Amino acid sequence: MDRDPESELAAEPELTEDEIEAEQVAELEDAIDSGRPQEVLDVLEQHHPADAADLLEILPRSAITETAELLGDRFPTPVLLEMRDEYRELVVESLPDEHLAEAIHNLDSDDAALLLDDLEDDRQAVILESFKKGEREELERVMAFDEESAGRLMQREFVAAPEFWTVGEAVDHAREHAEALPDVFFEIYVIDPAFRLLGAVSLHTILRNQRSAPLGEIMQPVRAEISPDMDQEDVAYIFQKYDLTSAPVVDESGRLTGMVTIDDVVDVIQEENREDLFALSGVSSADAFDTVLSTFRSRAPWLAVNVLTAFVASIVISFFAQTIDQIVALAILMPVVVALGGNAGSQTLAVSVRALAERELSGSTTRRAIFREGMSALLNGLVFSIAVSLIAYFWFRDVKLSVVIAIAMLATFLWAGLSGIIIPLTLKRLGADPAVASSVFLLTTVDIIGFLSFLGLATVFLL
Amino acid sequence: MDRDPESELAAEPELTEDEIEAEQVAELEDAIDSGRPQEVLDVLEQHHPADAADLLEILPRSAITETAELLGDRFPTPVLLEMRDEYRELVVESLPDEHLAEAIHNLDSDDAALLLDDLEDDRQAVILESFKKGEREELERVMAFDEESAGRLMQREFVAAPEFWTVGEAVDHAREHAEALPDVFFEIYVIDPAFRLLGAVSLHTILRNQRSAPLGEIMQPVRAEISPDMDQEDVAYIFQKYDLTSAPVVDESGRLTGMVTIDDVVDVIQEENREDLFALSGVSSADAFDTVLSTFRSRAPWLAVNVLTAFVASIVISFFAQTIDQIVALAILMPVVVALGGNAGSQTLAVSVRALAERELSGSTTRRAIFREGMSALLNGLVFSIAVSLIAYFWFRDVKLSVVIAIAMLATFLWAGLSGIIIPLTLKRLGADPAVASSVFLLTTVDIIGFLSFLGLATVFLL
Repeated sequence: MDRDPESELAAEPELTEDEIEAEQVAELEDAIDSGRPQEVLDVLEQHHPADAADLLEILPRSAITETAELLGDRFPTPVLLEMRDEYRELVVESLPDEHLAEAIHNLDSDDAALLLDDLEDDRQAVILESFKKGEREELERVMAFDEESAGRLMQREFVAAPEFWTVGEAVDHAREHAEALPDVFFEIYVIDPAFRLLGAVSLHTILRNQRSAPLGEIMQPVRAEISPDMDQEDVAYIFQKYDLTSAPVVDESGRLTGMVTIDDVVDVIQEENREDLFALSGVSSADAFDTVLSTFRSRAPWLAVNVLTAFVASIVISFFAQTIDQIVALAILMPVVVALGGNAGSQTLAVSVRALAERELSGSTTRRAIFREGMSALLNGLVFSIAVSLIAYFWFRDVKLSVVIAIAMLATFLWAGLSGIIIPLTLKRLGADPAVASSVFLLTTVDIIGFLSFLGLATVFLL
Repeated sequence: MDRDPESELAAEPELTEDEIEAEQVAELEDAIDSGRPQEVLDVLEQHHPADAADLLEILPRSAITETAELLGDRFPTPVLLEMRDEYRELVVESLPDEHLAEAIHNLDSDDAALLLDDLEDDRQAVILESFKKGEREELERVMAFDEESAGRLMQREFVAAPEFWTVGEAVDHAREHAEALPDVFFEIYVIDPAFRLLGAVSLHTILRNQRSAPLGEIMQPVRAEISPDMDQEDVAYIFQKYDLTSAPVVDESGRLTGMVTIDDVVDVIQEENREDLFALSGVSSADAFDTVLSTFRSRAPWLAVNVLTAFVASIVISFFAQTIDQIVALAILMPVVVALGGNAGSQTLAVSVRALAERELSGSTTRRAIFREGMSALLNGLVFSIAVSLIAYFWFRDVKLSVVIAIAMLATFLWAGLSGIIIPLTLKRLGADPAVASSVFLLTTVDIIGFLSFLGLATVFLL
């Protein structure tokens, strides 16, 4: 904070965030157009790497490539790491091998694996060749883990010490080997001679204790052990539950093998949240910076399935073409039944998918939740079928029609409510993602039950 | 880790997580039934507070009250803090004033405010009375901040030092005042004599540097300043963007006033994610542990609005009753038009709401996103209107009907795609939550446009 905030306010009166951003983008564009690397660097270095990455991402893709070619081996690695996948890949493609190798050398293993992953196989091999044997093998081990596993999330760099060390010895050691320490860390892991994890001492505990205190005495046990093959979603759950900032990763033999930090976990949390939201809305993946074609590709599959399911509903209606032909009020009212049923089902589905994601449904709470959804569907069904039935009565003055729509709606609500929780629970039990496909199945069956019950009952009682 | 993981595995062969949980719940229930506080405490203390809270929450509400009455002033505060709002309130109601006051005394200010907030006004006043004047005023100041502001998220306890202090002085000071330090902290804030924030030194930087290094030289500037009245969503955004673990809160005069830590921010992130997901599905709030009545209450408003919007669609259909009477195929096909349009709109809405939440839509990216959604709606519209039109042709062998449904679908897709991004952007610009009400408005207008265009075109060209 070396600028006076008040004079800054005076110098930039009433610029909106969008205007400030537009100015900064223009400045960056000018620098790129100038063709002088130093000017571009100057602009980028005025900003935090995350902000610089944001600015670059606003530019058209061609300007990104241009910047990468212009800067070459001077492209700042911190900015590169902050860029979104597809933009980062653009830059990585344009950078010369030697610079990339050098950049990767200086990174923690999780970031190094990230950049290596952006490369084509043969280029990756060339760059890996430039590492010393031990380092190369370690990187290869990290990259062998499943993409969504703790092994990929973790970094190989951490700080560990034997339990007989004192606080003073740990601090002295850290000072002497400052360069070798990970960029960021929050705790020191205590290990036995076989590198097995015994506990953890957070840095604020180090600070709180006298130099003479042995680590073995002030360490805390590590409650939830993370193994390298644990799913990243489970890692995120453990971090949230125990309010962790970092956590050790321990292999099958109990040996400390890596460390996961909260910043990466927050990214996982956001990724999982995005996936659930999109899955429930039938989007397979998306990004505000996607192209028209990739947007089309991420949405077309759901819509294609939907064409089929919509026609299934149409076929159900067509069974009752004669009934509709005689009572046109049915065509007018039938969308009400399925619209309300569909919405009631979507509500339950959203709550169930979220509860599953937050691990709130297990054992006895599951039974309670199914009971609650059933009762609530009954209650909503009663209230809204009576409301709809009354409106229908005042519109068409036909008691039988009103009774038919009330019964059909109640049936649809019950189905919607129960399937809204049972479908995701079943998918989860089968090991599938409860969010994906839940809503297709729910909305299709709600349509079928809605049309079938309404038009079927009408055929029996109104004709 | 003082247990041997292998012997544990041998002792508990093949129990599923649900079975382990059931066993633990049974143990806790037995202890409560025994009526002996020590037994309950023993069971609770076997677990991490977060796990103990989870176990309690599986019990029926009456058992929670019973536990609180049984334990009284021995109810473990860490477990209390980990409990969900409504369960925590149950316990707080059953605890005697003196114990509650004592528990609050020992907490960081954010947790203290949380518990105080659970109380009725007069009980809150009684408990606040028990504090010393200075402490009381500080708590009152925290509680005066808006519920979703940084002021509420932050704690008043942090570690600050003048810039001329060395690493050695800071460490010595921390050791001497170990008891007064916050429970958890990750950095030391550097301040001037007027308590204005100059920078921050993370604990791992303290560890890395020699005792003689002055804090003023090793500190990092604080890029994104958080003020007490900043919305918690903005705080979460800053934490994610800059990969923060903690951040100082600075008041209007530049004085350091509090500290926000990542564990609270992760809760905010999850809260905001839940809100967006539920808002898009028309649920006002929910919890897997809700009662039937509160479930009904959280869903009924949307369904009530939906009754009205569904009847608006019915009225649109009723304009064309005569047309449907003559061509019953229209009644059979019309749900296809609105189902596909509605789904295409929901996809766009989900992507837009998420992009807004992740701050990916600003200035020029907004224009690009609107263009992309428009083009993608056109592309999807063309592909799926041709598909539907072909299916309709093979079913009804009526070229005119096929052309009518194709045009209606294209119009509906274009409307759905554009309104899926423009509605949330407009709501955002008006300062409203882009997720709430977006889907009601979108689905209603899609229904109207779908029915109107399909039945209207049919009336003009098919009769």
